[in-house]
Amino acid sequence: MAYKGPGKVEVIDTPYPTFDLKDAPGINPANIGRKVDHGVILKTVATNICGSDQHMVRGRTTAPTDLVLGHEITGEVIEVGSGVEFIKKGDICSVPFNISCGRCRNCKERKTGICLNVNPDRPGSAYGYVDMGGWVGGQAEYVLVPYADWNLLKFPDRDQALEKILDLTMLSDIFPTGFHGAYTAGVTVGNTVYIAGAGPVGLAAAVSAQLLGAAVVIVGDLNEERLAQARSFGCETVDVSKGHPKDQIEQILGVPEVDCGVDAVGFEARGHGSDSSHEAPATVLNSLMDITAAGGALGIPGLYVTGDPGGIDEAAKVGSLSISLGTGWAKSLSFTTGQCPVMRYNRGLMMSILHDKVQIAKAVNAKAIPLEDAPRGYEEFDKGAATKYVLNPNGYIAA
Amino acid sequence: MAYKGPGKVEVIDTPYPTFDLKDAPGINPANIGRKVDHGVILKTVATNICGSDQHMVRGRTTAPTDLVLGHEITGEVIEVGSGVEFIKKGDICSVPFNISCGRCRNCKERKTGICLNVNPDRPGSAYGYVDMGGWVGGQAEYVLVPYADWNLLKFPDRDQALEKILDLTMLSDIFPTGFHGAYTAGVTVGNTVYIAGAGPVGLAAAVSAQLLGAAVVIVGDLNEERLAQARSFGCETVDVSKGHPKDQIEQILGVPEVDCGVDAVGFEARGHGSDSSHEAPATVLNSLMDITAAGGALGIPGLYVTGDPGGIDEAAKVGSLSISLGTGWAKSLSFTTGQCPVMRYNRGLMMSILHDKVQIAKAVNAKAIPLEDAPRGYEEFDKGAATKYVLNPNGYIAA
Amino acid sequence: MAYKGPGKVEVIDTPYPTFDLKDAPGINPANIGRKVDHGVILKTVATNICGSDQHMVRGRTTAPTDLVLGHEITGEVIEVGSGVEFIKKGDICSVPFNISCGRCRNCKERKTGICLNVNPDRPGSAYGYVDMGGWVGGQAEYVLVPYADWNLLKFPDRDQALEKILDLTMLSDIFPTGFHGAYTAGVTVGNTVYIAGAGPVGLAAAVSAQLLGAAVVIVGDLNEERLAQARSFGCETVDVSKGHPKDQIEQILGVPEVDCGVDAVGFEARGHGSDSSHEAPATVLNSLMDITAAGGALGIPGLYVTGDPGGIDEAAKVGSLSISLGTGWAKSLSFTTGQCPVMRYNRGLMMSILHDKVQIAKAVNAKAIPLEDAPRGYEEFDKGAATKYVLNPNGYIAA
Amino acid sequence: MAYKGPGKVEVIDTPYPTFDLKDAPGINPANIGRKVDHGVILKTVATNICGSDQHMVRGRTTAPTDLVLGHEITGEVIEVGSGVEFIKKGDICSVPFNISCGRCRNCKERKTGICLNVNPDRPGSAYGYVDMGGWVGGQAEYVLVPYADWNLLKFPDRDQALEKILDLTMLSDIFPTGFHGAYTAGVTVGNTVYIAGAGPVGLAAAVSAQLLGAAVVIVGDLNEERLAQARSFGCETVDVSKGHPKDQIEQILGVPEVDCGVDAVGFEARGHGSDSSHEAPATVLNSLMDITAAGGALGIPGLYVTGDPGGIDEAAKVGSLSISLGTGWAKSLSFTTGQCPVMRYNRGLMMSILHDKVQIAKAVNAKAIPLEDAPRGYEEFDKGAATKYVLNPNGYIAA
Repeated sequence: MAYKGPGKVEVIDTPYPTFDLKDAPGINPANIGRKVDHGVILKTVATNICGSDQHMVRGRTTAPTDLVLGHEITGEVIEVGSGVEFIKKGDICSVPFNISCGRCRNCKERKTGICLNVNPDRPGSAYGYVDMGGWVGGQAEYVLVPYADWNLLKFPDRDQALEKILDLTMLSDIFPTGFHGAYTAGVTVGNTVYIAGAGPVGLAAAVSAQLLGAAVVIVGDLNEERLAQARSFGCETVDVSKGHPKDQIEQILGVPEVDCGVDAVGFEARGHGSDSSHEAPATVLNSLMDITAAGGALGIPGLYVTGDPGGIDEAAKVGSLSISLGTGWAKSLSFTTGQCPVMRYNRGLMMSILHDKVQIAKAVNAKAIPLEDAPRGYEEFDKGAATKYVLNPNGYIAA
Repeated sequence: MAYKGPGKVEVIDTPYPTFDLKDAPGINPANIGRKVDHGVILKTVATNICGSDQHMVRGRTTAPTDLVLGHEITGEVIEVGSGVEFIKKGDICSVPFNISCGRCRNCKERKTGICLNVNPDRPGSAYGYVDMGGWVGGQAEYVLVPYADWNLLKFPDRDQALEKILDLTMLSDIFPTGFHGAYTAGVTVGNTVYIAGAGPVGLAAAVSAQLLGAAVVIVGDLNEERLAQARSFGCETVDVSKGHPKDQIEQILGVPEVDCGVDAVGFEARGHGSDSSHEAPATVLNSLMDITAAGGALGIPGLYVTGDPGGIDEAAKVGSLSISLGTGWAKSLSFTTGQCPVMRYNRGLMMSILHDKVQIAKAVNAKAIPLEDAPRGYEEFDKGAATKYVLNPNGYIAA
Repeated sequence: MAYKGPGKVEVIDTPYPTFDLKDAPGINPANIGRKVDHGVILKTVATNICGSDQHMVRGRTTAPTDLVLGHEITGEVIEVGSGVEFIKKGDICSVPFNISCGRCRNCKERKTGICLNVNPDRPGSAYGYVDMGGWVGGQAEYVLVPYADWNLLKFPDRDQALEKILDLTMLSDIFPTGFHGAYTAGVTVGNTVYIAGAGPVGLAAAVSAQLLGAAVVIVGDLNEERLAQARSFGCETVDVSKGHPKDQIEQILGVPEVDCGVDAVGFEARGHGSDSSHEAPATVLNSLMDITAAGGALGIPGLYVTGDPGGIDEAAKVGSLSISLGTGWAKSLSFTTGQCPVMRYNRGLMMSILHDKVQIAKAVNAKAIPLEDAPRGYEEFDKGAATKYVLNPNGYIAA
Repeated sequence: MAYKGPGKVEVIDTPYPTFDLKDAPGINPANIGRKVDHGVILKTVATNICGSDQHMVRGRTTAPTDLVLGHEITGEVIEVGSGVEFIKKGDICSVPFNISCGRCRNCKERKTGICLNVNPDRPGSAYGYVDMGGWVGGQAEYVLVPYADWNLLKFPDRDQALEKILDLTMLSDIFPTGFHGAYTAGVTVGNTVYIAGAGPVGLAAAVSAQLLGAAVVIVGDLNEERLAQARSFGCETVDVSKGHPKDQIEQILGVPEVDCGVDAVGFEARGHGSDSSHEAPATVLNSLMDITAAGGALGIPGLYVTGDPGGIDEAAKVGSLSISLGTGWAKSLSFTTGQCPVMRYNRGLMMSILHDKVQIAKAVNAKAIPLEDAPRGYEEFDKGAATKYVLNPNGYIAA
């Protein structure tokens, strides 16, 4: 599955991976030729289309043509590099979307989203993503995963894994990412929570808030179909096209405030109410500061960028947002930004899935489609389908 | 000591306090007549001029004429309300600048900076401060302190307290506030730290970072006299009038980054280098995101407001800052804002002072002056004197 | 409800409370005459029989005759002391069993289980409990609650409170106590947990572990009826009369270890397997060290004492336990002991109840009985009934 | 340096290491032949004699003859395995005494003291230590370090490292171990701390408590020379041969309690006062529970074992200690046991050394001696010399 220019993706032929990084579209020149004896080659069991892929496909980045997409990967190990000791051929494993080395200061501190050794340009890396270090994406039949002993989460039982694959495939990104949003928003037993955005990450944050013991989870969006999805598993909802969420929150809770706020939207935010027809990149942050009670916290898994060629104005193009920080300061709010360090959460969430404590696939409305249907999946997802598309390149996922 | 209009303060006569709140300039109408049997009347031992008082005095707020100033108070208990059980007449006590009730949800959670019961308008209150609930200030001979059993930190020994009074007087605000900045920036043993601002709070943050075990503390400012003060106790310094701090930090550390960043400047920030002659309210935040290493944290004790009549442009006047959030997001930074909850730190810092582990008075260059000299103190401090002025209204502080 | 000697409790007449502490059986002499203007008088809505009451009733302590029992109290405010500001007549409130002042260092640090000002003999106090400061118990029609603004948790709505009273009455002790056990055992999303003891605190710990996101909760006991109660809400169970829990845990999980261990038994523990017919006070601690995986934690809400006149041997009589600490040390375990600081958890748990996220009454099999039936409740509970008895002295609880 | 039987150590000839584990005294059979391409060979720069080596040498364990001792290692990389990517020949590095893989669940959670992949018998491993997995010790000219990219802490500058080598050599064990003790005892700014034991770990804990901001650090021991060493850097001291530390603490602090307690003694503890002539293995733990204030914590870096052939009685021989847990329970104490996970602290402590914030070598009275003098070092240390012996096998350490 490759990026072919704004608005266009195609299934292309790519070479079978080897235990080194070869030149290809999007590969960081400094990474070409890198030896990957610590890696394994996976046959892809499931690989999902992510909202952050859409930023590229919509042309909001500088992604090169023929970049192989895909950073949400689950696979079966079919070849093992000489430096791999504990992962074995035949293991079914989840791949954290953040690539990390397990050997730098940040990895040793569990900050795998900002590993120092995998991206020659800056801390942090991901598969198949523009400017993220140049590792080949996983929306493909086979994919190379480096530092396999460190990166891979092995499922304890093969049959059980394949049976629950639509849930387990969410461990590579959106379930931990949503969980990170809820967790860093301080969600704990008895809290009220507002989550901006009912896309897959927002829904995963809502499920996570429930798993963390929230008393009330409210999800806001413009898209009625996605809001219905949120209600399907017990969330309250707010339609932000009808006005500022504050008033609707007050109708639900009796007070216009929640304990915890999650931004699962990011820089492509739209306005509220009558402003909801156009982008207003600081809308979500400013409204969350308004909505979150004094002493609360904001988890911000939604992506913010330093450059957005398609931004609405000069400020947005360089990633400058007009933020009413005083609102947050007066309320002693705290804020956590950045990529989710998947490895911090994926094992616990796997246990929750395997022991039937959570139904993430149902919550995000997961739907398996063949690799060749991926372009249609991208298109429908971009139009706002309340569906999480899971590619099934090798037929592991039963009909 | 009263505010008399932009740029003007005067010593005025005020009534001796009683155990209820009487109408006066700045008193919140909803607080008038409030019974304060839980309070004590203090004879002021020391009361300091604070940088946040200057915001009012410079006319950057809507403070009313004859507002009695002063929220940094240490005093001797001379009258005890009928509901006070453990604080006794004769006790010498430090008063946290945040007024709190010790009975609401936030106080029970140690969030005394956003107490729900002391300010009729919003969470959080302070003595002698515009729009902060209408409690009378302490730059006066006597002051009423409500919820005395909860609010007051009693010094264990009277003589020892008076001997170390220039240090102990910093416990009411700037020492805990600076400490909160360093603590919420995540400073721990072995870290490198950059502190923006070498005013008293910045210097207190620097001392605190040392106390928390920082390996290197770097302080940045435009004011050479204040930077010299920072060097006097072992800090490295950066003169931001000479350019972006990044380059100077690289010269000091060998890398252009620190582990932890503290904003001890707030909304009246100026630009760097050639831009340092004019205000640029988002400068400090944006440069701290640039300077702080991936995975780091920013402590933001510097004040940000929702309205600034004297702001440089329309955005600044409503407290909107142009923030490059993507820079922070790409580095997974976190941010903590708001008033320091003094009670969380003042007891430990008192112990550090009493056992000679820290010399905060020397670090901030504390200087006692008579109450009648306060107007001069305000003026010199406003001009950038590297001095923390301590008023001595009742002659407790020996010459 | 008064203690009348080993094995004997009776309903007696007691005076209506006043806003001071009068002499009575069990009142600490140093507390007699203490003024309680900060208190309220509650008409009891619900007051439960607790396993820790049984220690007294069984004669395992030095409780005096006519000590009024009861530290699990929910009530309606019918008189308000002059120093109370925010709690009002007519409020229905939960009373944390730990009495605390809200004014000492420990209360300010949220350590309300070891308040320094309520028990003249040592930190920490409770209503109606031997050697715990001498405050009158609440298994009565009326009770005095000191420091009411600080101590009481007000329910937001009277009708809703009475409707859910069998759940809400658990907030005064066992629900937070069980939660504290699970929380301090480090239970978080995806963990496996073993809870020793299926009495009300053990069952509350099991519910709490579920609320905290545990993947598997295993409860061990000797009492089949109580184990059935644990299974009724989704727990796995271990019958320790059939042998060491390790083997049964391995059958359940595939490994003989759990991530987290909770001791909800305390010093009256019995042995395992063939040793289960007699007391062996260190059994639970030693087996938990065996069962808990390296790196895990033990929450120990079960009571351990410094003197136990009824102990099995000389060591037990002075509270000395033979502990295999090396087992825990080799596995880097950590341990948290002591009374639960109820106030840290009761608000969040109340929200969970009010929003139907948890059914604690059902889990512990709550059963309301009239005050006059309390002696029978004590007796049945002592025999091991899988029932939590809730006294209904004033008829608030509907049949 | 090899163990030759109770009370006896000798310098013996051993083979130069290779990138696999060969059979040798103490090597775990399951580890023989293990491939170590992920390892490096170090030329030893410094390697210290540790108190825990003494347990073996005193014959308190089942160590085999010719076991090569030494787990405190600093060295220069002279050969690099094929799987090592970031550590280079010529790097001077500190080796955490806990061997860990960087690839298991526990390592990913920073619990490197209980790595699951390095010791075939149980979690956790160390160099040159009986029953700890069978890796060859480092009191030798050369040593093999597995998982080198993960385990090694590289010093930034070779010359600086050699200049400060007597300080930096403490990073492999005792400085982090002492720090872990203080940290897990909850030491923070302004606390009072009691440390049981003035051996190198106790002194390192004392230095660490100071670094963490303690207001008063009190060290207790029977050995006057070691107490004098503690006083040399600002600690207060207690001579436990003169009675229970409680009374002496009261003389120092005015109260008989401290906020935090550290057990730097372990299972070979002696009694207090007139009981100090003989072992009493639970003495330190019981007295720490007595001394530590309600709400405090105990850090327990001192070693406790499950079997002690030389124990004073049958209980001690199987590691059973008679512990007055009720004392701790009544005070809500918490306890942290186990090996220090060195990697969590060594980088920060290295920064503190390199920036002259701490003088650990001076505090523990480090003394470099040639490898051939090691037997004398063992002997003097065993007699209670207030000296930390650093072996200098290859002459790196200047006279």
